[in-house]
Formats: sequence, C-alpha cells, structure tokens
Amino acid sequence: MLYVVGIGSGNKDNMSFACYDAIKKSDVIVGYDKYISQIQHMIQDKQIYQSPMMKEIERSKKAIEYAKEGNTVSVICSGDSGIYAMAGLIMELAEDDIEIKVIPGITSAILASSLLGAPIMHDYCSISLSDLMTPLELIFKRIELASMGDFVIAIYNPKSKKRSEHLKESVDIMLRYKSKDTVVGVVKKAYDVEQEVNICTLESINYDDIDMHTILIIGNSSTYVKNGKMITPRGYEKKYIDKMNS
Amino acid sequence: MLYVVGIGSGNKDNMSFACYDAIKKSDVIVGYDKYISQIQHMIQDKQIYQSPMMKEIERSKKAIEYAKEGNTVSVICSGDSGIYAMAGLIMELAEDDIEIKVIPGITSAILASSLLGAPIMHDYCSISLSDLMTPLELIFKRIELASMGDFVIAIYNPKSKKRSEHLKESVDIMLRYKSKDTVVGVVKKAYDVEQEVNICTLESINYDDIDMHTILIIGNSSTYVKNGKMITPRGYEKKYIDKMNS
Repeated sequence: MLYVVGIGSGNKDNMSFACYDAIKKSDVIVGYDKYISQIQHMIQDKQIYQSPMMKEIERSKKAIEYAKEGNTVSVICSGDSGIYAMAGLIMELAEDDIEIKVIPGITSAILASSLLGAPIMHDYCSISLSDLMTPLELIFKRIELASMGDFVIAIYNPKSKKRSEHLKESVDIMLRYKSKDTVVGVVKKAYDVEQEVNICTLESINYDDIDMHTILIIGNSSTYVKNGKMITPRGYEKKYIDKMNS
Repeated sequence: MLYVVGIGSGNKDNMSFACYDAIKKSDVIVGYDKYISQIQHMIQDKQIYQSPMMKEIERSKKAIEYAKEGNTVSVICSGDSGIYAMAGLIMELAEDDIEIKVIPGITSAILASSLLGAPIMHDYCSISLSDLMTPLELIFKRIELASMGDFVIAIYNPKSKKRSEHLKESVDIMLRYKSKDTVVGVVKKAYDVEQEVNICTLESINYDDIDMHTILIIGNSSTYVKNGKMITPRGYEKKYIDKMNS
C-alpha cells in the first residue's frame, strides 16, 4: 500500500486523523528532507528515505519500489498531497500493481488564510510563480485573467534565489485591474514557531520580506480589514448588504 | 472564545486534530442542521444551536452572543471554515470584544480530488455557481476567464432546485476554450457511505446525476486518465517530459 499524505503545516494540530494513522502504520516514510524533519518525532521506528528538493521523480520511483516489495509506504507532502505536491507524479509513474491512496490535507493557502482572518471566503485562484515546470508566459496570463475576474488570488512559490522578480511583475499585472489599495495578506511559515503574518496593500508589499516559504493572499475588490483581520465578504449583491443591516 | 471550525467531510478521518480539540472543549456548538448531525456523536454533552440553511446571519449572531456570555463556542462548517463558509460572516458581524480563532479544514474540492486521483496538482480556480450572493454575470465571466487560462476548475454548488441550468451554461462557456474531451471528475458526498465518484468528459456529463452536494473538477488541457484515476501532470515544459523519460 502506498499512501500519499498531506501533512498540512507539519504539526499535529493541522494534520488529519487519516494522515496521522497512515504515517503511523507505514513501514517506510519517503519525503523531502524538510518535511521529514517536521514529523521526525512520529517516525523514529521507521525506515526513512529522504532526499533534497528537485529529486521528486527519484523519490516517487523509490516509494513505488518499496510498495512493490510489500511495504506500507507513506510519501510525505506539505499542505495537501494533490496540490503542487506528489500525488500526481506518483500516479504518472506507477502501474496498477500497487494500491495508491491519496490522503488529503490542508493546503498552504488555507492555512495562511486562517491566520489572516477570512480572506478567501469566495471564488479564488491558486497560482504558483515557479516557472520550473510552467512557461512564465502562461503564469503571467493566469495572473492577468484572475485579476480581470476579481478573484481572490493565492500565490504559491512567490520567490526563490533564481526567481526574485516574478512577484513584482505579477503585481504590476494585477495593478492593471485591481486597485492599489487591494488588501494583501502575507504569511511566512504558517503555524511554525517562526511564523510571520502581515497585512498590507498591493502597492505596499515588502518584497525583501518574501521567500519561497511565503504565501500571499491577494483580496478581491470587496476585501477589507477589520480588527486587524483580512475579510472578504461572501457576496456582491445589494440584498446581502441589506440583509446585514436588517 | 469563538472557534470557527472546518470539519472536512464530517467524519473523523478528514478532521484535523485542532478541529477535534476545539469541538471537544466547547460549551456550545452552533451550526447548520446537516453538519451538526454529522458530528452528533462528538457533542452529546453540549448545548447545541442549530438552524436550517440560509440562516447563516442568525447563527453567526447567536454564536457571537454565546461567546460574549463567556462560553467557549464552536461554529461548525463543512470543508474549510474560510471557503464558502462562516468565518468571514462572523468576523463581519463581531466586534473586538471576543476572541475568534479560525480552525482550517480540508475544503470539498480537495476531498473530492483525493478520491479522483490527482486532478488538481497545479494552478486552479474555485468557483461557486450559486447566484444567491453573486451576480450570475460575474460567475459566468469567471468561468470564461478560468477556461481561457487553462486552469483546472473546481465547481462548488453546481445545482439546486432553483438553479438547474447554470452548470449547463457554464459548460457551454468552457467548451469555447476547452476541448470536449477535457477530463471531468464528478464526486457526490465525498467520504460518506453514499459517496459516488465518476470520471467523464466535458461533453458527457450526466446532468441528472448532479445535485447541490456534488463537486466537479474540470481538468486542464494536460489532464488524463490512467488506471481509472484522473491525473493532471505537474508541468507543461518539454524538459519535464524529457526528465520523465530519463
């Protein structure tokens, strides 16, 4: 059996019971170094196969191999296992001679949102700024279309050493459609001891403060701040506002 | 203290430890009838305030009132508490005289995806077809923009008694940009005993089989089916395909 599990933020609080159980009953744990270290205390009695970032194909093949040998295997993903994670790659590479079970988790945009207040609430887009696998042109096109549609936008992988300007360019595109006062939530290392949560606007983002572990939630035209929390109302209709006041 | 908790699919497996703990330590549980009945076994010793759908404002006000009186209160949401749920409304209505904590959960699109295989994986949009709070025109515009961007699209609230044609119209819009062979995952009552999981194409959707509890995941141009699972590959780049074959 091969479980592909999403561990949420990595601490038990944001882990599902199914995720915890799958890890506990596994013989072998496969994952990226950083995620393995987050759950180290849970897996001390287990065989561990870990490797650095960018070694996803190797890890997937290894996990499949262990499962074929009859082991119960958990492949560890941050957030959810099916969003910018390993479930797809494993299914692309595996044949039908092993059973694969995807254990869902809380994705990073949702974790970040819970710390900001209620910034998503309504229709939203999730976009990664990593152009390792996706042409930059398509990424910017998506940023533009999402802005045109007044979606809330969750930005994954906003920056890396090799990509420092993509976020600025994305914000420039957004500013063609979204007001400069649009509320933006910036969350670094959600639910970690080093967690940072900030609320700013589209024109006041502190780019130096953003790294690959940061998630940005860009509000829609109705998003506002109240009592330090970022809130996107449920709807646009006047009847909703009327209801609120009744 | 007022917790707004996302219970995922409602069974313990897809609930986070933080969600479980918040419910367990609450004096009062507030929620929509159906969600309350899903966690009935956990809350037998507690005061319960439940009401039907559309009574969200009343429920929110009541929850705030209980918290002000000094109770620990949990407001129950399906999926995540911050996506098409109650966190925003409560923060809109509350003042800063009570503490509010949003406990994130696994949203329905992610629950559905885990049963389909790995259909999201990459950039995606989440769109609700309910026009109770959002003008239909804006909903259709979002469907169009999401299709133009080759996003994976998660559809929430595809149908109700009053809205039976929105999904068909949405699919007609998608078909202007997406191939009729685009893979579509249809999941009804994920992780419930009555769960139904089907994979079809954009032109073979069985509209009679869809209700308000159904989530649809519309693939992007790379999504395919393998061993009965719906898979969206991680990337678009040729180097990725080359890597796969190396």
